[in-house]
Amino acid sequence: MSQSTASNKKVVLAFSGGLDTSFCVPYLRERGYDVITLFVDTGGVDDAERAYIEQRARDLGAVEHVTESGAQPIWDDVVVPLVIGGQLYQDVYPLLVSDRYIIVERALALCDARGTRVFAHGCTGMGNDQVRFDQTVRSLGDYDIVAPIRDIQHQHHAVRAYEAEYLQKLGHHVRPKTAKYSINVNLLGVTASGSEIDEFQAPGPETWQMCARPESWPKQPLRVDIEFERGVAVKLDGEAMPGPEILRRLNERLGAYGVGRNIYTGDTTIGLKGRIVFECPGITGLMTAHRALEEAILTAHQNGFKPLVAKKWVELVYRGFFFEPLKDDLEAFLRSSQTFVSGIVTLETAGGVVTPVAVRSEHILRNKGAVYAQSADWDAREAEGFIKLLGMSSTLSARVNPRRRPGQR
Amino acid sequence: MSQSTASNKKVVLAFSGGLDTSFCVPYLRERGYDVITLFVDTGGVDDAERAYIEQRARDLGAVEHVTESGAQPIWDDVVVPLVIGGQLYQDVYPLLVSDRYIIVERALALCDARGTRVFAHGCTGMGNDQVRFDQTVRSLGDYDIVAPIRDIQHQHHAVRAYEAEYLQKLGHHVRPKTAKYSINVNLLGVTASGSEIDEFQAPGPETWQMCARPESWPKQPLRVDIEFERGVAVKLDGEAMPGPEILRRLNERLGAYGVGRNIYTGDTTIGLKGRIVFECPGITGLMTAHRALEEAILTAHQNGFKPLVAKKWVELVYRGFFFEPLKDDLEAFLRSSQTFVSGIVTLETAGGVVTPVAVRSEHILRNKGAVYAQSADWDAREAEGFIKLLGMSSTLSARVNPRRRPGQR
Amino acid sequence: MSQSTASNKKVVLAFSGGLDTSFCVPYLRERGYDVITLFVDTGGVDDAERAYIEQRARDLGAVEHVTESGAQPIWDDVVVPLVIGGQLYQDVYPLLVSDRYIIVERALALCDARGTRVFAHGCTGMGNDQVRFDQTVRSLGDYDIVAPIRDIQHQHHAVRAYEAEYLQKLGHHVRPKTAKYSINVNLLGVTASGSEIDEFQAPGPETWQMCARPESWPKQPLRVDIEFERGVAVKLDGEAMPGPEILRRLNERLGAYGVGRNIYTGDTTIGLKGRIVFECPGITGLMTAHRALEEAILTAHQNGFKPLVAKKWVELVYRGFFFEPLKDDLEAFLRSSQTFVSGIVTLETAGGVVTPVAVRSEHILRNKGAVYAQSADWDAREAEGFIKLLGMSSTLSARVNPRRRPGQR
Amino acid sequence: MSQSTASNKKVVLAFSGGLDTSFCVPYLRERGYDVITLFVDTGGVDDAERAYIEQRARDLGAVEHVTESGAQPIWDDVVVPLVIGGQLYQDVYPLLVSDRYIIVERALALCDARGTRVFAHGCTGMGNDQVRFDQTVRSLGDYDIVAPIRDIQHQHHAVRAYEAEYLQKLGHHVRPKTAKYSINVNLLGVTASGSEIDEFQAPGPETWQMCARPESWPKQPLRVDIEFERGVAVKLDGEAMPGPEILRRLNERLGAYGVGRNIYTGDTTIGLKGRIVFECPGITGLMTAHRALEEAILTAHQNGFKPLVAKKWVELVYRGFFFEPLKDDLEAFLRSSQTFVSGIVTLETAGGVVTPVAVRSEHILRNKGAVYAQSADWDAREAEGFIKLLGMSSTLSARVNPRRRPGQR
Repeated sequence: MSQSTASNKKVVLAFSGGLDTSFCVPYLRERGYDVITLFVDTGGVDDAERAYIEQRARDLGAVEHVTESGAQPIWDDVVVPLVIGGQLYQDVYPLLVSDRYIIVERALALCDARGTRVFAHGCTGMGNDQVRFDQTVRSLGDYDIVAPIRDIQHQHHAVRAYEAEYLQKLGHHVRPKTAKYSINVNLLGVTASGSEIDEFQAPGPETWQMCARPESWPKQPLRVDIEFERGVAVKLDGEAMPGPEILRRLNERLGAYGVGRNIYTGDTTIGLKGRIVFECPGITGLMTAHRALEEAILTAHQNGFKPLVAKKWVELVYRGFFFEPLKDDLEAFLRSSQTFVSGIVTLETAGGVVTPVAVRSEHILRNKGAVYAQSADWDAREAEGFIKLLGMSSTLSARVNPRRRPGQR
Repeated sequence: MSQSTASNKKVVLAFSGGLDTSFCVPYLRERGYDVITLFVDTGGVDDAERAYIEQRARDLGAVEHVTESGAQPIWDDVVVPLVIGGQLYQDVYPLLVSDRYIIVERALALCDARGTRVFAHGCTGMGNDQVRFDQTVRSLGDYDIVAPIRDIQHQHHAVRAYEAEYLQKLGHHVRPKTAKYSINVNLLGVTASGSEIDEFQAPGPETWQMCARPESWPKQPLRVDIEFERGVAVKLDGEAMPGPEILRRLNERLGAYGVGRNIYTGDTTIGLKGRIVFECPGITGLMTAHRALEEAILTAHQNGFKPLVAKKWVELVYRGFFFEPLKDDLEAFLRSSQTFVSGIVTLETAGGVVTPVAVRSEHILRNKGAVYAQSADWDAREAEGFIKLLGMSSTLSARVNPRRRPGQR
Repeated sequence: MSQSTASNKKVVLAFSGGLDTSFCVPYLRERGYDVITLFVDTGGVDDAERAYIEQRARDLGAVEHVTESGAQPIWDDVVVPLVIGGQLYQDVYPLLVSDRYIIVERALALCDARGTRVFAHGCTGMGNDQVRFDQTVRSLGDYDIVAPIRDIQHQHHAVRAYEAEYLQKLGHHVRPKTAKYSINVNLLGVTASGSEIDEFQAPGPETWQMCARPESWPKQPLRVDIEFERGVAVKLDGEAMPGPEILRRLNERLGAYGVGRNIYTGDTTIGLKGRIVFECPGITGLMTAHRALEEAILTAHQNGFKPLVAKKWVELVYRGFFFEPLKDDLEAFLRSSQTFVSGIVTLETAGGVVTPVAVRSEHILRNKGAVYAQSADWDAREAEGFIKLLGMSSTLSARVNPRRRPGQR
Repeated sequence: MSQSTASNKKVVLAFSGGLDTSFCVPYLRERGYDVITLFVDTGGVDDAERAYIEQRARDLGAVEHVTESGAQPIWDDVVVPLVIGGQLYQDVYPLLVSDRYIIVERALALCDARGTRVFAHGCTGMGNDQVRFDQTVRSLGDYDIVAPIRDIQHQHHAVRAYEAEYLQKLGHHVRPKTAKYSINVNLLGVTASGSEIDEFQAPGPETWQMCARPESWPKQPLRVDIEFERGVAVKLDGEAMPGPEILRRLNERLGAYGVGRNIYTGDTTIGLKGRIVFECPGITGLMTAHRALEEAILTAHQNGFKPLVAKKWVELVYRGFFFEPLKDDLEAFLRSSQTFVSGIVTLETAGGVVTPVAVRSEHILRNKGAVYAQSADWDAREAEGFIKLLGMSSTLSARVNPRRRPGQR
């Protein structure tokens, strides 16, 4: 379709088939690029949609379209460290749009393979994804970033209308925007924003996507066993399977009970408040089970400090710094902490919430009886000594520098 | 009953009517004390039990029995800072046995009122409560601590059997221990431990106390509005009421939907793992609502740092340091942070989990339109500049000190 | 000089008399502003320079020139919380250019007094001061920011040459740039950058400003007593005096011994590395003394946690967030922590470094003898119990999950 | 001397030749032990003293005496991670008595080699070393700890007098205690405590040990180059040498200029305040140089977070948790952070303080010119965008929830 010539510059475009990235193809061609579209399948589409995306790319004039599966990298580079870390952004949000990093990383690998240093994305200049895209590119090498939507925002305000008109003029169909919410789906989960969600009001029923609504939760509670090896989930109900398959099944099984749905307002990288509804049954199950295992196995010192490390990991990933050196350092810590985090956790849900009802592991920190009698038992006198010395500093302060007591207010 | 004489030493005993504190009364009398029993009602008993406790104290030979309500101090000194802080011990546990601090504080006030410096408690030398009791006493003044159960543990191993026999010899009835679990109830919630919980296995149905079991959750979802003023809950569904009443009603209403139940393994002060089931519908509702309000109102800097402060508060309170000077400093921070945390949050539950579906407040950080146009709007070029400079250090590092990419592994 | 009319817009310009702010005056006049110049004296100039600045402003056509002393606000709002906090940026740098915040705050107060919402500053678009200026303005109200130097950088590259030429064309003298280094002096200290400092090489002798060079350090050691009340220095060698006077005298006396000089490379807000030489004898003396006092008076819990709070304060102040709400919250903590931080510290220096050789205070946490015998003494058996329980979690881990020993590598 | 029999229990005693450990030998023999004395030379003694210690052990009846050098393990396991971490206990103290961990570790290796599970040490029940000794033993295996001095403290108060008398009765000479201070020397440095130091008064001249007094500092400044590879010092002034030799030479050369001396009051593990004078010229030089290198090489994110990790490392090591699993995790982070920390730092001192005057490394984060133009340069407009978005949250807060300004107080 496209009249590629040897002299044309190549560009790899991260392509989803939506309005923004569809616009990018002819826009880039017009500027003399041979456009290679890459769709990284991160778990949000079915076969029909995947075929549509490929056809759409060709229709729009891409010289080449590539489809890659992002499932395994998402598991390895996002899910595993997230679950091991055990922390959420602002204590609530599990970084559900982190598939962006995988998409960019795959796109730059394609740039390298096709011999170009030009990468294009369809992010706007108003959102947080542009931070993730741009910074990932800069962290992975010296590539040119072309961002057509951001470029046209320099001149145009009603950008989406402009894009639609532009495409239609060129004879391309534009799917009408019908959805009330801006919804994003991938293997990690679903996010929904827009409309009354932005107004801090209660979201409508269309925001239930991976999670079944309460009226359809099964009557019988569900139990599921997750087995971890050094912090990584490896089996579901005793059956070994690849990580992405574990996550997919948990999304289905726990999603049927409405597990992992929440609403929160985040401080976005760009500085504004962003309120979203999100659903992530599988991630919630994995994190709940992993936490229960760690609580039983890690030392008090480890349980006390590790959250600080994991919180920083979450913050870096949220803010676009997926390939920042500090993240490597944090992951070295996290990996080390998992040496003994192996065992099986039984989760149970009757709807809404999932609870880790049982934990089996040979690594649980408990006194296995007389063998350790000398070092792990104590008597009342030792306890008294412990309490006295543990509180020495506070006690001395109470004597030397007494404060008013609440009863004396 | 007791033959008090002017020369007898007085002791104030924190008294619950259970085996341990019942034992303490004659034990202390035998050692020459006039025993004043204090029952601080922290919300775990009904009128009948309260009357039983009073009668029990007299039967055992207390020279005086005092009953006090601990509800308001629990609200003021535990619930309010806990909810404002928004953090949980090990990210999970809301400090449900913190009523101990109120009990000791009230007991020492009674010591002062009755002119004695001797305080007695029924803690054993094996648990964590003794840390809370002893340290609180030492932080509040120079009192003598008498701990009869710990004392007899110096000689006896089967302490509870010894206590029962001792009481029966003196003609006092001993309630048979029938409960499978060790259960603790107060206004804050319920904890259960023992039996298969200690074995990291699934807990039995008797551990459902404040929370209704799934089969009896109402069919209709529940919505409830909580109004906060400077971080403190003041109204429920528009009706102003005292804090303890808000908590009681939330315990009932959310408990009917099974909200706030969890199982976790904690690193206890004494150094062992302690696994418990706990239920706290009201605290869960308050914390969920307060968090949703703060997410919308505090700055990104505040939301980013405040958790560290609140986590330290939680750790101090868990470990017995309720009257440590650092806690005052932390609370000064927390109070300051609440200046604008006023507004109404609508919670919704259909069972198991509670979600903050709506937030109303004039303090939400959002651009109220053209008025703030200059400072709070930006264009695509500014966003590009932001991203470039925000990532400058990471980008320079990628240029100067490139690391292997995941794709190159 | 300037022909002001009622219709002219007024602007308050933060004015130092240097090239950049001199350029701003006619530049702003050309754009129809009546320029009110404000020089906030933060301690870096003598009387002659102050008079020159005033004359310069009038020569350049300012409709009004105002000189204000910034000494007391610098003490109250920068020095006091910095010393109380006890932390440095990147553990090294004491925020010596924080006088910027005072300058802006005073300038906006002058805007209010003169009835204008327009504020101008002479920062370039390359440095970090622009962040401090702009953000302070935005945090203090809805003012317009005019930044002429940044504006001309949109068109011109050799900005300083352009400014000089522009001024000379208008008949204004331009001081030749002779200094090898970019040097900044105020009450807080001196910073020097540029030339071989930027090249990570050893700085030349002109970088010794407040600090005497080693060859001229006095032979006799110096001792000086600083008295603090609730964390604030109030007396020097027993003599009460205003804070700024304490700082001035310490700069002189400790500067004669070369105290408080260092070189460091900072991660600047703008994302680049910035290497500077700095000298701050007085701040160093105050912080050393205050730390010694706190070490003796605060509890172990306070000493352990307070640095985290103070580090965040330092980071906010470094990065431009002097009026961010979180800073208020942090200061509430810091203030609370100083309740008992009163006493006298004797500093000693023989050159290069200052040491807190003695501390006197009634608040030092030490056992005052038999009075506290019960609560603050312990015996060997209690110590053994303490050690056993303190290490319980680690010990259990060593039993259950043994790791290889270094000797077994 | 000792009549060892096959049936006798063996014990390995950490032996220094001082009063306490001398007492232990006959005390243990009396209780039926064959005593194997181990002297781990951690750098505090000369050849004569080493020979004395060996002879002393034999005189006291040890069945075997072993001398081991602790220099290399101290470098590898204490100095390297301490310098890489870059943090000090309470921001001041570089853990100078951490040789204890090496001593215990070597002693337990000797236990294993000699086939015994019994280890003895001469710590008292009043100090902090007992925590380090006991916890290290428990973390390294299931050994019996015999602590004769602590044991006799159960009965005796004037313990040192009792020990002296006991030894003299057995015909052993006891060195008279003449030292005013309790002084501890090893490769890491010197600590002094006791007498007026405990009273928070100025220490006497005998506390100057490794550091020359100011009157004898050389007139000429000293420059020394330290080269690091991945964070570890490997060369001094261009000459490769083993780590312990680098440290020894730096102790000498910087000690001649009085570098690395300080006084501080620490919150000890046991809960009391402990005031000491310490001197560590070499550690101070290494840490100063390493910090200067890291400031230039690590990213802003790394420099911002790494101190938290290193502070926890320091706290664990101070408090006795040298073999706690968390320490392994922290060291995995620290190691990872050093990937590019290679280069040469020039230190300079003229007395009292040492300054990193120059840094050479190919890893310094600076823009190497046009090559990186696209990603690391910016213009004024981009800077404005950066500032606006960086401050967005603060600015919105200032608009929506204005606070009183200081000028409006």
